Amino acid sequence: MKIYKNYKLSITLFSIMFLTTFTGISQENKQLHPNLITTAKSIELIKKKLGKYPLLDNSIKEMKDLVDPELNKEIDFPIPVDPAGGYTHEKHKENYLMMYRAAMLYQVLGDKKYSDYVIKMFKGYVALFPTLGLHPDGKSYSPGKLFWQALNDAAFLVNVAQAYDCVYYEFTPEDRKAVETKLLKPLADFLSVGSPKMFNRVHNHGIWLNAAVGMAGYVLNDKELIKRALFGAEIDRTLETFKTVDYNDPALKGFDPDRPAGYFMQLDNLFSPDGFYIEGPYYQRFSIWPFILLAQTIENNNPDIKIFKYRDSILKKALYTALQLSNTNGDFFPFNDALKGMSFASPELTLALDVVYKNYGKDAELLDVAAKQDRVVFSEGGFEVAKDVAENKAKAFIWKSANFGDGADGKNGGVGILRYGPSSDQLCQIMRYTSHGLAHGHFDKLNQLLYDNGNEILQDYGAARWVAVIQKIGGRYLPENTTWAKQTIAHNTLVVDEKSHFNGDINESSEHNSELYFYDASNESYQIISAKENNAYPGIQMHRTFVMITDSRLEKPFVLDIFNVVSESKHQLDLPFHYLGEIMDVPFDHEVMTKDLKPLGEANGYQHLWLLSKGKTKEPQAKFTWLNSGRFYTITTVADENTELLLCRLGANDPEFNLRPDPSFIIRQKEAKNHTFVSIVEPHGSKSLTREIVTNSEGGIKKLAIVYQDSDYIAIDVIVQDKKLRVILSLNNNDTKKSHSLKIDGKMQKWMGPYMQLFDK
Amino acid sequence: MKIYKNYKLSITLFSIMFLTTFTGISQENKQLHPNLITTAKSIELIKKKLGKYPLLDNSIKEMKDLVDPELNKEIDFPIPVDPAGGYTHEKHKENYLMMYRAAMLYQVLGDKKYSDYVIKMFKGYVALFPTLGLHPDGKSYSPGKLFWQALNDAAFLVNVAQAYDCVYYEFTPEDRKAVETKLLKPLADFLSVGSPKMFNRVHNHGIWLNAAVGMAGYVLNDKELIKRALFGAEIDRTLETFKTVDYNDPALKGFDPDRPAGYFMQLDNLFSPDGFYIEGPYYQRFSIWPFILLAQTIENNNPDIKIFKYRDSILKKALYTALQLSNTNGDFFPFNDALKGMSFASPELTLALDVVYKNYGKDAELLDVAAKQDRVVFSEGGFEVAKDVAENKAKAFIWKSANFGDGADGKNGGVGILRYGPSSDQLCQIMRYTSHGLAHGHFDKLNQLLYDNGNEILQDYGAARWVAVIQKIGGRYLPENTTWAKQTIAHNTLVVDEKSHFNGDINESSEHNSELYFYDASNESYQIISAKENNAYPGIQMHRTFVMITDSRLEKPFVLDIFNVVSESKHQLDLPFHYLGEIMDVPFDHEVMTKDLKPLGEANGYQHLWLLSKGKTKEPQAKFTWLNSGRFYTITTVADENTELLLCRLGANDPEFNLRPDPSFIIRQKEAKNHTFVSIVEPHGSKSLTREIVTNSEGGIKKLAIVYQDSDYIAIDVIVQDKKLRVILSLNNNDTKKSHSLKIDGKMQKWMGPYMQLFDK
Repeated sequence: MKIYKNYKLSITLFSIMFLTTFTGISQENKQLHPNLITTAKSIELIKKKLGKYPLLDNSIKEMKDLVDPELNKEIDFPIPVDPAGGYTHEKHKENYLMMYRAAMLYQVLGDKKYSDYVIKMFKGYVALFPTLGLHPDGKSYSPGKLFWQALNDAAFLVNVAQAYDCVYYEFTPEDRKAVETKLLKPLADFLSVGSPKMFNRVHNHGIWLNAAVGMAGYVLNDKELIKRALFGAEIDRTLETFKTVDYNDPALKGFDPDRPAGYFMQLDNLFSPDGFYIEGPYYQRFSIWPFILLAQTIENNNPDIKIFKYRDSILKKALYTALQLSNTNGDFFPFNDALKGMSFASPELTLALDVVYKNYGKDAELLDVAAKQDRVVFSEGGFEVAKDVAENKAKAFIWKSANFGDGADGKNGGVGILRYGPSSDQLCQIMRYTSHGLAHGHFDKLNQLLYDNGNEILQDYGAARWVAVIQKIGGRYLPENTTWAKQTIAHNTLVVDEKSHFNGDINESSEHNSELYFYDASNESYQIISAKENNAYPGIQMHRTFVMITDSRLEKPFVLDIFNVVSESKHQLDLPFHYLGEIMDVPFDHEVMTKDLKPLGEANGYQHLWLLSKGKTKEPQAKFTWLNSGRFYTITTVADENTELLLCRLGANDPEFNLRPDPSFIIRQKEAKNHTFVSIVEPHGSKSLTREIVTNSEGGIKKLAIVYQDSDYIAIDVIVQDKKLRVILSLNNNDTKKSHSLKIDGKMQKWMGPYMQLFDK
Repeated sequence: MKIYKNYKLSITLFSIMFLTTFTGISQENKQLHPNLITTAKSIELIKKKLGKYPLLDNSIKEMKDLVDPELNKEIDFPIPVDPAGGYTHEKHKENYLMMYRAAMLYQVLGDKKYSDYVIKMFKGYVALFPTLGLHPDGKSYSPGKLFWQALNDAAFLVNVAQAYDCVYYEFTPEDRKAVETKLLKPLADFLSVGSPKMFNRVHNHGIWLNAAVGMAGYVLNDKELIKRALFGAEIDRTLETFKTVDYNDPALKGFDPDRPAGYFMQLDNLFSPDGFYIEGPYYQRFSIWPFILLAQTIENNNPDIKIFKYRDSILKKALYTALQLSNTNGDFFPFNDALKGMSFASPELTLALDVVYKNYGKDAELLDVAAKQDRVVFSEGGFEVAKDVAENKAKAFIWKSANFGDGADGKNGGVGILRYGPSSDQLCQIMRYTSHGLAHGHFDKLNQLLYDNGNEILQDYGAARWVAVIQKIGGRYLPENTTWAKQTIAHNTLVVDEKSHFNGDINESSEHNSELYFYDASNESYQIISAKENNAYPGIQMHRTFVMITDSRLEKPFVLDIFNVVSESKHQLDLPFHYLGEIMDVPFDHEVMTKDLKPLGEANGYQHLWLLSKGKTKEPQAKFTWLNSGRFYTITTVADENTELLLCRLGANDPEFNLRPDPSFIIRQKEAKNHTFVSIVEPHGSKSLTREIVTNSEGGIKKLAIVYQDSDYIAIDVIVQDKKLRVILSLNNNDTKKSHSLKIDGKMQKWMGPYMQLFDK
């Protein structure tokens, strides 16, 4: 990862301001508990409206349903031995969540049974924690004490700091002292000065540690902890945990123990100026929680810092960008190591939304998302969200076409999203041309994802993992995450010679990013994203352009995909389409492996694909049609005698059945030098299950052809029904003011800018 | 099919009554149009409430959205040449649906643009119809004229008779005469005396023809047509279509051209006394439409017949039984040739529900279903449903445990359904032990289906067909429907020596049905269905018992499955579980075919299964866990050294990709004589995608063992957590009053009736 070079200026200015003025928590907030996220004021507001606002009531009921059955059970505080998924791990996790929930219920309902329970929990940890060394199965790069990773200890501290804040006045002074000196302060010390390599690292684990220590600092009114959280921990090189650092670990790339670190450093570097989080939306969801927790805590205790204004309101952008990086059902785009089904209904986004709603001007579109979250956090923001949803102030949340830059300076490539249609039935085309995305990144330059009508049509596989399922190696990433999910063939992008981009080397990949060629969504009826990748394969230039085109003769828009590959030597080029749905029509000739299946290849993910059939077409284009949720989709692709058409299904070399048996359609160009894949994905027709009526199962794209090509231009004709649509792309000049002229079929065509579209009347 | 032997008595009594009193349509109803389904009175009611009742308004909007764009287009009346899926077929189908909808819109909105459109349509058909011979691609057993099957011509007539009824007064007398003499009467004649082999057949096609002719008879006030509809057509053996009958066609089994036939015959024979339709719920949905259409038409015109009282209110039972034969999301159980996703939201059930609601005492539970249908038919019943839904009179529809007898006398086996829990989260176990079910039947004696939490857990594959998709052989049944979907291995029941029940011979299968042993759902915490099948395999007796058991130590009920096989000679016994979901745990030793897949077998469906892995267990039981929609399911099965455990996936020998790639788990007992499969399917735990929290992924059933077995009894111990649950079954005496005593492990146990359950305290 490239660290943003300007951080020193912004941090230096900020830290001078902070360190000269900071004398601990602002006086007016000093002795008020709770005052981290939940505040005394918010509780006062909430208590008056019990039974009035459904989102508040749902949130209380959800917590009561979980906490009430536990109140009279014996609590277990096991000696930590298990990794994630194991008993001790899950038990301590359950314990801190119960502490948090019970403390919240105590605040809103005022029932001492809840505070008693929380105090009992604290006493257990006060007894246990001082006895603990490092976790016996601790992760080498950052072991915890209660858990295998310091990350989980940080999540523990984030939750129990809030629990402590909420039952503060119910403790005896002695108990309070014990909690502070035997649990909270030592744990905060362990996570900061005791774990400097992770605490000072620009990384999602780092921000969790920063937030935990900061929240502990505020609840303890400990200026030193707060300073560490904001600016990094002092380095004590004698510490045992510090010595275990392996600087050759690629995951630690960019780590410098002597550099300023902490919350501001994370804010400067983990988000791009557009609010794009370097690891992608699944991890954006995960890290936005500590970012927002600490921000609201700072705001409640040091409003003078004006944290929500920091870096041009970066926290607001972080939430909005996360929301835009989702399908219209709220599911995040599964870039990188991402688990499918994670959505904006997660608790992390609930907190972030409540906080952003309050601190950034009450955007009514957020209320639409809040209604789908169906719960709020007990905070002033949460209260206002619940109130405004109940008062029907929500406006429909709008997903828009957008192009988000990646990297701290926004210049490390990005993600382009083209959308057409209302949220209820939207076509959405995504191209990823970002940086690698740290250790959870995939080798997926210029990857395509396609959604329509609320469904995944061309999927990104996401991660091979079942979080928290013990039987699946404790819920950790599975071996197939490396052998399949990260490999290029698992994505909808070019694979050369059956090798992944950068030959699967994360160090190499982390040095580069793809580059935007141009993006234009200003005209809804032809929206374009175009990007280039020149480093993924030595000697090969990749340039991919997607145009989402609306043609009034078709019922739906379609996506034209121009993938130009420039190479001086011959290679095998594979362009996979990981479609989801049922095969409806394979009109080209092909040999189906009806009696024996073999893997498609040997390595780099190919070993996981069963080859189902292999085909060729005598036509100048090939078609393939499938059905997904009552709608048909047809790929039309330009083909020639060197084009092979493969149908595959995932599952080979998977002895533990860790992979989903998903299908794919691969366009293979054998022994190709320069080659351009030109394809269209067209949604069309419908199939009703209860009416048994089918419409337009064949689609309206009749022909697709490259009618002109040289090193500077490509021109493509699409025959829609009986009329022609011509698209011309300038390949080497993206200046929107540049005039072009080109003779095609003896006719001169003139236009301005890199893209031209022409309809036959 | 066995024809119900008592039909003569009921029909004879009824027909004497009818024929002596019938003088055409009752006088008071005579000149009122419309008076088939939509009546003048219903229209008067509806017109007053436009904009008031959402279900009415939705229904109007739905029709307007379809009709309005067509009004000014040229109408095509192509010469019929194509089978289903082809242009001429789909065009004529669209035409009659448009005629029906436009006529309805004319009635409720009074706008002449709609009646003009309908009249224009009629003129086209008046010109076309007289020119037509039999359809060039006509089905041999019953060709149509406009369509390849007379069935479709009947659907045409059902719709246009209603359209005619609704625009009757807008025709000139000449046009009216032309429609009656050149279209309606000749088509009704063709479908009755012109197609006697289908018209007089007890079959879903037969009832469509009867209803069409009856409705034409009523709209034309033609006593002869009405008589044919109710009692069958005269036989004219000189007709060309009659000569094509092939009496060896198994689909025509039971057809007797000289027998009384028609509507009453269908009512007597196609439903069991419980309202179970012989072909299963998918076709029950399809045939209930003509049954109900003709019933309401008769009621509106000849209320003296009291058709809704006929056969102890059989039409009411038909609807309620159809509704009960569905999952809690409304999807019908996919017995036999059934397409998944067909549900009670279909137009057929909408009509049936509206009619039953009005004529059988306004059951508020039906309104809950109507609200999900979200539309009504423009009839008095439809009006009342829309009104009562708008007035919030709906009560939650309750799915109940039930046992439905099959066959005209209810004695040809049946279907047992065990349910536990509210509709929002219900476990539902089904055993099918019916008769074959005519030509669409499958070889699936004692088949199991399991639903939970609204999802299919153990599936019946249903039919291999994409209705109306041209590319899938015109939407007809696919070859794999015969080679896979109908075969026994495609079901969750016993397969002996890789052959289907009755060796796949429909004639043989149609001679037999399984037999109920006992059914008891009186105690919610142990509900039982037990049945025997002694004919599917020569020399082999099959006896399967399902007990749905609730044990307070488990979070959910589970299903115990005792499948007792008695055989004197050695066979290979396969018991498949067609689970749906993702594999979470395969704890037994097995060899996974990671590099090469081969079909499991050669024939009878086995050729379609890829063998993924083959295992054995050293434990006295084997377990297998999968995940479906956020919940875990574990099969625990008693095993020994002759037990093989196979994992398979569908898709071999499927050159057109017609099969879904669904998974299965097969318990194989090699060289077994007498053998009892004892298995448990247990739902447990949860996995939240947005919270990433997993609970109880391993389940609570620790052990399962047969602790006693002789030819009369079997006793099974289930270890739930650390406590024992004992189940004893009497295998040869189902008398609920019979006392039994049995010594197990030296301890005498005494009980009454065929089943005993004992919990360790």
